[in-house]
Amino acid sequence: MSVGEVCKEIESRSPRFVESLRKLVKQPSVSAKGTGLAECADLVKEMMAEAGIEAELIGVEGAPPFVYGEALAGKPGARTIIFYNHYDVQPPEPLELWSSDPFAAEVRGGKMFGRGVSDNKADIVSRINLVKVFLDSGGLPCNVKFVIEGEEEIGSPHMPALVERHAERLKADACIWESGGLDEKDRPEITLGMKGILYVELLSRVANRDAHSSLGAAVANPAWRLVWALSKIKGEDERILVPGWYEDVRPFTEKELEALEKMPMEEELIKADLGVEEFLLGASGMELKRALVGGPTATICGFQSGYAGPGSKTVLPSTASAKLDFRLVPDQKPGKLLKALESHLAHQGFGDIKIVPLSQEEASRTSLDEEIVHCASEAASRTYGRDAVIKVSSAGSGPMYLFTNRLKIPSVCVGCTHAFENAHAPDENLRLDVFIKGTEWVARTLDLFGKRDP
Amino acid sequence: MSVGEVCKEIESRSPRFVESLRKLVKQPSVSAKGTGLAECADLVKEMMAEAGIEAELIGVEGAPPFVYGEALAGKPGARTIIFYNHYDVQPPEPLELWSSDPFAAEVRGGKMFGRGVSDNKADIVSRINLVKVFLDSGGLPCNVKFVIEGEEEIGSPHMPALVERHAERLKADACIWESGGLDEKDRPEITLGMKGILYVELLSRVANRDAHSSLGAAVANPAWRLVWALSKIKGEDERILVPGWYEDVRPFTEKELEALEKMPMEEELIKADLGVEEFLLGASGMELKRALVGGPTATICGFQSGYAGPGSKTVLPSTASAKLDFRLVPDQKPGKLLKALESHLAHQGFGDIKIVPLSQEEASRTSLDEEIVHCASEAASRTYGRDAVIKVSSAGSGPMYLFTNRLKIPSVCVGCTHAFENAHAPDENLRLDVFIKGTEWVARTLDLFGKRDP
Repeated sequence: MSVGEVCKEIESRSPRFVESLRKLVKQPSVSAKGTGLAECADLVKEMMAEAGIEAELIGVEGAPPFVYGEALAGKPGARTIIFYNHYDVQPPEPLELWSSDPFAAEVRGGKMFGRGVSDNKADIVSRINLVKVFLDSGGLPCNVKFVIEGEEEIGSPHMPALVERHAERLKADACIWESGGLDEKDRPEITLGMKGILYVELLSRVANRDAHSSLGAAVANPAWRLVWALSKIKGEDERILVPGWYEDVRPFTEKELEALEKMPMEEELIKADLGVEEFLLGASGMELKRALVGGPTATICGFQSGYAGPGSKTVLPSTASAKLDFRLVPDQKPGKLLKALESHLAHQGFGDIKIVPLSQEEASRTSLDEEIVHCASEAASRTYGRDAVIKVSSAGSGPMYLFTNRLKIPSVCVGCTHAFENAHAPDENLRLDVFIKGTEWVARTLDLFGKRDP
Repeated sequence: MSVGEVCKEIESRSPRFVESLRKLVKQPSVSAKGTGLAECADLVKEMMAEAGIEAELIGVEGAPPFVYGEALAGKPGARTIIFYNHYDVQPPEPLELWSSDPFAAEVRGGKMFGRGVSDNKADIVSRINLVKVFLDSGGLPCNVKFVIEGEEEIGSPHMPALVERHAERLKADACIWESGGLDEKDRPEITLGMKGILYVELLSRVANRDAHSSLGAAVANPAWRLVWALSKIKGEDERILVPGWYEDVRPFTEKELEALEKMPMEEELIKADLGVEEFLLGASGMELKRALVGGPTATICGFQSGYAGPGSKTVLPSTASAKLDFRLVPDQKPGKLLKALESHLAHQGFGDIKIVPLSQEEASRTSLDEEIVHCASEAASRTYGRDAVIKVSSAGSGPMYLFTNRLKIPSVCVGCTHAFENAHAPDENLRLDVFIKGTEWVARTLDLFGKRDP
C-alpha cells in the first residue's frame, strides 16, 4: 500500500485516534505529584500491544516505569527510527481557570481540551496508531522503537541512567522527538535542537535569625551580598561575566544562518502577547533570532529574602536566595561552567555564597545535512503543500542531548501539535485536524526515511 | 516631703503599681489590627484622672485617640516636662511560643509576662503613678504633661499632624521619651536620640505576566533590572553611592565622641546572640560604635521576584520588588534624599524602576549639654549608685524628631525597662524590681529638673 493510501487510512480511522487520545488523557499522570504514573505507563504499554508493537516496561530505581516498544519493518536490513515521548503531564492547577475538567478530555469546536492532550499525549497516540495503520497496510517502511518516560515535566532525572544502561537497545538511525507541529501561522515547523541548561540556586546566609534592621549598621546583610554577587554574574549589556563562559560556544554554520534568515519570527505578536514594547536591548530580526536560537542566557527565575509583603517591616534578613537559569548552546558543558561560576564568585570575594546545582543538561543540535531533516522537510511539503520552517534550535531545553550527544542519533521535532495549545497552562487543547494531519506528516517522514535505505 | 521619702512611698506602693500595670496589659491594644485601641485610650485616661492628672482624649482624623494629660507643680513659674508614650502594642503572634497568655499579665519569678508589658505600658503606669505619689506627698517638683499615642508600633502616622496642630499645648522644657532603663549588664542607660529613616519600596515591572524562562534571551528581566539598580545604591564597601547622601551629615561633637568612647559595647554577646563571627567590615570598638550610633545605613529588608520555592522552576518573572531601609543621622533630610535617590537611579539608566516611599522620619539628637541630660544622669547615680551609660543615639528610629526638631524640646530616654525584655517577641516581660527602681529614677530626674528652676 502506498503512503498516500496509508494517509487515507489514517483519516478514515480518525474517530479511533480521537477515542484513544481521550482514553489516555482521562488517565491522570502528574509527575510533580507522582499520581497515576504506573497506571498511565500500563495503559500506554497496553495501547502499544494492541497496535502490534512489542512493548515492555523498563524499570530504573526511583523512576516511574519507562515504556519501551519495538516494531520491525517488513524487510530485512531496514533502518530504525526511535520515538521519544513522555506520558507524564504538568499539574492541572489552577483548576478554576479551566473551562472543563482537565481530565475529562472534552471535545468542543474541533478541539480536545485536557491536561497533557498536546504535551505530549497526542504524539504518543498519533505514533502508536500510525504504526498500527502501517502494520495493517503491508508493513512498516522502517523499524520503529519507542521510549516513553514519566518524568519529563520534572526534568527527566532518570533519563541519563536509562540511556547509559540501555544504550544498545535505544540504538537507532534517527530520533523523532516529542514535540513539533504547526507554528503560529500554521506553517509546519521542524526543530533541530534544544538549548542546554545549568540551573542553580545561590544561597547567602549570615546570622542565625532575622534581626532588627537598625543592626544593618553592624551586621552583614545576605540580601546585599547576593545582589553584589549577582551583579558580578551578568552585566547590564546582558553579557555573562564569568571568565570562559563563551569559550566553547559552537558558531552557527553557514547553513544554520541561512535557515535562521528564512525562519519567520512573529515579533509583533510575541510583544503584544507579553505586553512589552521592545525586545531585550532593542533587538529584532537576525539579532533576536540569534539570541533565541543560539544565545547563552543567564536568567534570574526568582529571588527571595526578608520581608516582601505589604507595607514596611524593618528587618535585617538572615538569608537570601536566588534561582538562576543559564541556557547553554552547543558545545558548552554545564559541569565545566558550574565550576567556572564557583571560582568566579570566589575570586570576586563571594566564596561565602553557596551554589547548589539543581539541573544540568547539554544543548543538542542536529545538522541540517542529516537525512532525517531532509525526509521530515520533504514530508512536510507533501503533507501541507508548503515548505517547512526549519528552526535550528528551540529556545527551551530538554533531554534531547542524550540522543544527539550520547547515543549520536540525529533528532528532529516533527509532530501533530500546534501553536496556542496552552501547554502547561489552563485549557490546554489540541486541534483534532492537526492531530490527524500531523500523524500523516510523521507517516510520510517514516516512509521517506525507509525508502532511502542504504 | 523629700524625694527620698517619695521614693520610699513608691516602694511601699509597689503592689498598687503592679496591679495597675496588670490592668493595662490585660487590655489588648494592637494597632496593626486596630483592636482595643479606643478601650485602651479610655483606660489610660481613667488612670490619669484617678491619679489627679487632668486628662482628655485628642482626636486626629483617622487615628485612634491620643491621650493628653497635665498636672501642675505646687509652685508658680515651674518648668515643664512632657512624657511621650504609646499605649498600642505589637501583635502577640506567634501565640504558640508564649509560655502564658500574652494578655493575662501573669507574674512568675519576679517578672510580669505579657504583650506590651515593657513596650510600653510599664512606663505609662510608672509615670502616671509617680505623679500620684508626688501629688499625695506635697506636690510635683515641675509641671508634667503626657502625650500618649496609639500608633507607635505602626510608625506613628498621625503624630506629625498632632504636633503641628497642638504645638502650643505640647510645649515643654524637656521630654522624657518612652523607653529607657537598664542595659545588658544592669547599667542605667540614657539615650539621647534616634536615627531617622527613609523606607522605600523599589518596583520593577516588565511583561504583563510571567513567561517561560527560555524567553530570557529576548525579554527584559525585572529581577536583573532590580539587582543592577540595587548595586548602584550601595557598594561592597558599604558606602552609599547616591551623590550627596553624606552631604548634610552632622559630625559628632567632641563630647559625643567622649561619650561614645565611654559607652560599653557588648560585642561578644551580640555576636554570639546572632551567631556571626564578626561585625560588618570587621569593625569593632569605636568604629563599630560610630556605625551603630551615627552611621547612615542602607539595608535591604527584603526582596522578591519570580519563583523562590523548593526545586527549580524555569520562569522569567514579570515583576520584582525590594524594600530598602535607609537609616539617617542628624541633619540628613529624608525628602531631599528620596529625590537624590530617584535622580541617581534615573541617571544610572534605571528610570523604569518605581520608587514608593513608605516611611520618612528625621533623626533626632539631644545635646549632652542639656540640663535634662545632667538631671537624668545625676538621678541615675543617686538611684543605682553607679554612673549612667550615655548613649548618644539609638540605632533605631522613632518620632522623637517631632519633639527635638519641630518643637525644639530636648528629649531623653529614661525609664523602667531593661535588656532581654523580649519586646516585639514572645514572652515579652518586665522585671518588677526594675519597674519600681526605674520609677524612682524618673522621680529623681523630675525632682532635680524642678530644683534647677530659673
